[in-house]
Amino acid sequence: MGTAAHEDQTPSYPTSLGTSTTEEISLMGQSLSEDLMGKVGFAELAFWMTATRRPTPGELRTFEAVLVALADHGFTPTAIAARLTYLSAPESIQGAIAAGLLGGGSRFLGVTEDTGRFLHQVLQADDGERSTEADYDALAREAITRARAAKQIVPGLGHPVHKQGDPRTPRLIQIAEEGDTRGEHLRLFEAMGRVSEEVLGKKLPLNGAGVCGAALADLGLPVDFLRGFALLARTAGLLGQIAEERRNPIANEIYMHVDRNARFVPLSGDDAGESKEI
Amino acid sequence: MGTAAHEDQTPSYPTSLGTSTTEEISLMGQSLSEDLMGKVGFAELAFWMTATRRPTPGELRTFEAVLVALADHGFTPTAIAARLTYLSAPESIQGAIAAGLLGGGSRFLGVTEDTGRFLHQVLQADDGERSTEADYDALAREAITRARAAKQIVPGLGHPVHKQGDPRTPRLIQIAEEGDTRGEHLRLFEAMGRVSEEVLGKKLPLNGAGVCGAALADLGLPVDFLRGFALLARTAGLLGQIAEERRNPIANEIYMHVDRNARFVPLSGDDAGESKEI
Amino acid sequence: MGTAAHEDQTPSYPTSLGTSTTEEISLMGQSLSEDLMGKVGFAELAFWMTATRRPTPGELRTFEAVLVALADHGFTPTAIAARLTYLSAPESIQGAIAAGLLGGGSRFLGVTEDTGRFLHQVLQADDGERSTEADYDALAREAITRARAAKQIVPGLGHPVHKQGDPRTPRLIQIAEEGDTRGEHLRLFEAMGRVSEEVLGKKLPLNGAGVCGAALADLGLPVDFLRGFALLARTAGLLGQIAEERRNPIANEIYMHVDRNARFVPLSGDDAGESKEI
Amino acid sequence: MGTAAHEDQTPSYPTSLGTSTTEEISLMGQSLSEDLMGKVGFAELAFWMTATRRPTPGELRTFEAVLVALADHGFTPTAIAARLTYLSAPESIQGAIAAGLLGGGSRFLGVTEDTGRFLHQVLQADDGERSTEADYDALAREAITRARAAKQIVPGLGHPVHKQGDPRTPRLIQIAEEGDTRGEHLRLFEAMGRVSEEVLGKKLPLNGAGVCGAALADLGLPVDFLRGFALLARTAGLLGQIAEERRNPIANEIYMHVDRNARFVPLSGDDAGESKEI
Repeated sequence: MGTAAHEDQTPSYPTSLGTSTTEEISLMGQSLSEDLMGKVGFAELAFWMTATRRPTPGELRTFEAVLVALADHGFTPTAIAARLTYLSAPESIQGAIAAGLLGGGSRFLGVTEDTGRFLHQVLQADDGERSTEADYDALAREAITRARAAKQIVPGLGHPVHKQGDPRTPRLIQIAEEGDTRGEHLRLFEAMGRVSEEVLGKKLPLNGAGVCGAALADLGLPVDFLRGFALLARTAGLLGQIAEERRNPIANEIYMHVDRNARFVPLSGDDAGESKEI
Repeated sequence: MGTAAHEDQTPSYPTSLGTSTTEEISLMGQSLSEDLMGKVGFAELAFWMTATRRPTPGELRTFEAVLVALADHGFTPTAIAARLTYLSAPESIQGAIAAGLLGGGSRFLGVTEDTGRFLHQVLQADDGERSTEADYDALAREAITRARAAKQIVPGLGHPVHKQGDPRTPRLIQIAEEGDTRGEHLRLFEAMGRVSEEVLGKKLPLNGAGVCGAALADLGLPVDFLRGFALLARTAGLLGQIAEERRNPIANEIYMHVDRNARFVPLSGDDAGESKEI
Repeated sequence: MGTAAHEDQTPSYPTSLGTSTTEEISLMGQSLSEDLMGKVGFAELAFWMTATRRPTPGELRTFEAVLVALADHGFTPTAIAARLTYLSAPESIQGAIAAGLLGGGSRFLGVTEDTGRFLHQVLQADDGERSTEADYDALAREAITRARAAKQIVPGLGHPVHKQGDPRTPRLIQIAEEGDTRGEHLRLFEAMGRVSEEVLGKKLPLNGAGVCGAALADLGLPVDFLRGFALLARTAGLLGQIAEERRNPIANEIYMHVDRNARFVPLSGDDAGESKEI
Repeated sequence: MGTAAHEDQTPSYPTSLGTSTTEEISLMGQSLSEDLMGKVGFAELAFWMTATRRPTPGELRTFEAVLVALADHGFTPTAIAARLTYLSAPESIQGAIAAGLLGGGSRFLGVTEDTGRFLHQVLQADDGERSTEADYDALAREAITRARAAKQIVPGLGHPVHKQGDPRTPRLIQIAEEGDTRGEHLRLFEAMGRVSEEVLGKKLPLNGAGVCGAALADLGLPVDFLRGFALLARTAGLLGQIAEERRNPIANEIYMHVDRNARFVPLSGDDAGESKEI
């Protein structure tokens, strides 16, 4: 009894990912060296580990296109933060990348997941027939109207720079179509693009980060985990930024620029009084 | 003059990576939507952005095999740290991934870069002829002997679990050979495997993380940046770990196990005395 | 024109914190060496920089008591994550501390801020007279009833371990009382403790992390920034954990325990098929 | 027997820090609520947890002065990185602080530890008599000469801005003297200041971050852990920076400035060729 009780208490930690013996390394039950290396690409492996199934070739091409679309957007706040961190601690590349990823939150990297989740919720809540473009248009009209009434932002609509249209959007839809992965999320997103002017009174482009969320949702990836894929994409971009910082540094100049243009502003209403020795 | 002086002072930040106009998004001078999405894979883009040149198909296959080999090693300290962080702050996936990457330092993820750099330094310092296996064996013998005399560890030799041979090693050498990317670093690494028993008196397997470093160095990637690629690979693995933690959580049980088995040990020699109100 | 336009474009970055000249270093307009070092304590400086005013002695004692109360809670997930990160990358103490802080999110470190904000919102929304205990009891009753109806958790009520009462709670209330900083937030929190059984049908203790939030809110610190103070407190605790890990390591044993007890579970319904060479 | 074997295998994790029962929370064997809260300050607790002993009042005053001296240096790369991260992910204060701490590496926050360790090593290696200023001068002369011959940097000598003397240095020495904590590390550091011009041919001020390392080493804190205290100090500074970013934001303007002044530079020698569909 004592022993049994003990055995019950010894925890066991289930996993379907990496395990190994002295002779073999396995990943998802596959031999890493025989079944995966040289046979499965890196993006394919990332899909497989998170979706728990292999992608079809069409799914993989859409998935890779999303990762490519989200990898680097130039001098974003996260890229600058990574470069500044590399400047301060060049011995710790992991720290610079981590610092860059930590900006992957609601404002700059959140649109992908927000859009996927919004579309998913609208589709889940709808029990009507959906086959024609007009069906999707009706649903999009309803969803935008409802969001507007609740004073909520409709994620994926609008872009601060690409006001006339984000070039990634039609391209990703085309790739999804070619790969046979253009599903309900993308179709609803496209419908939102068609009806938004009519409902909101102004033309708003379909955001490129948003269309990535719709495409990932159509791949069956968990909609409340889509930010994870944006982070994977961004890791490659941050690597590129840090590699460039090593070849052609700018972080010190950014730092000097900010420091040189600091302007002291006294704390308002602060009457600190004189400090005594403690 | 004033203007010119001003213009001189306005900093400009050179980059070859992402830039954009209202109509187009560019990455390395390529149109993101027309030239890259659907035409360049994710791993290929990561190579291109860091090496500043496109890989050949053989180089790309070797590169992808390295990323696959390094993506996930099961319940490593970094995987556990990422899961525990996700448990504590599930709203911040970026925090969990960053926490996992921060363990990508000298001990668990350092072998790849250490091996690449070691091989590179030995090759750089050698001005002899190198064509036959015997040439590489001689160089390897010399390098290991010198490291041993200096009481330095030879990176990439030995593995705590795969004592009879790491299955990734011959497989990656084969892939490099097939892709025509098996160069001096891999050849020297293989030579180290052949001569190590003779020099050190015991047989040590060629480590799978180490062979990845040799293969990346043969691709011409900067040897003091190889850890970056291990971190990229690991990001996919951490995504997989967190996705699994969501499906099938274990972090709370790990935490409970540790907490339950805490054993208080008084501070030695501490005579704290009684604290007074402050 | 050019010059003027240029000058307009040169940004200037206002700050009331650190600035320096060749001769002096200032912080909030004070001379760092003459006015602050030796005259202002560390916790006092932290209060001053965030509240933009100096605390009274009573406020400072309450503030220090909160930081002490939140510094370390033993083997929490964040402490374990920091130790595992230190194990993997011992050369980067900043990485280990950062990894520990990244768990400072909604679940384990969120109660402090959640409680402060909840109390603040209830007080803001109330326009009734509040002077007697009975007034606060009525408001607490109303707030808990409303939260319950909306199926919301009332933050700060209940504790997984200290079911009969969290010893920090009465102590912090006493310290606040002594320091003349026991204000509306603490009084409402205490009232919640008095009425919760009556409204919820079971006795729930007032959580020690929650009372810290109430006390910080009574100090006039911004209620949507209270997590920041928990993070500052926790940084000291993580330093202590890592210092102990150096003296008396356990992270490797935790890692070995988890790895040894891994149990492979095949991916359900995965028919991976055979991979072909790529 | 089986049971015993099992018990042997169940790990136990020793700790002298936080533990708790249903009724009490302990930290280092002290009752958190009765012995620590209201009786021990926050900096004092941080010292105690890392040094495993309570500081004397003089030690505590020196320790607090060091933390105050290192808390904030204005718009450093780490402060800017934290603000940019907050801009991108304002919902995750822990991410912004972690990003700021990750820059606490060799270049900007490393001087404190480097100086303490350098002084410690020189003192450890010396077996001569040391009592007069002349004894320390001789040792300092020898150490600087040796470092120079080995082309090593002498940490703590020189400052990019405070070329005529760092105001923190004499002030901290005075505080240490008053607190009876001015020991061998500080005395050797002062000697380095006296002899550096004679040995190196130019006058170099004693750096304020360096003197902090000397003072911490004199407190008996572990010299290869001094960076940890700089990180604790900096956490308060980062809190101040983020609190100011909330009141008076500048991160977006920094981002816009960098983005607006991006200048595209083609990758040299890159003949990418035309990409084909994949």
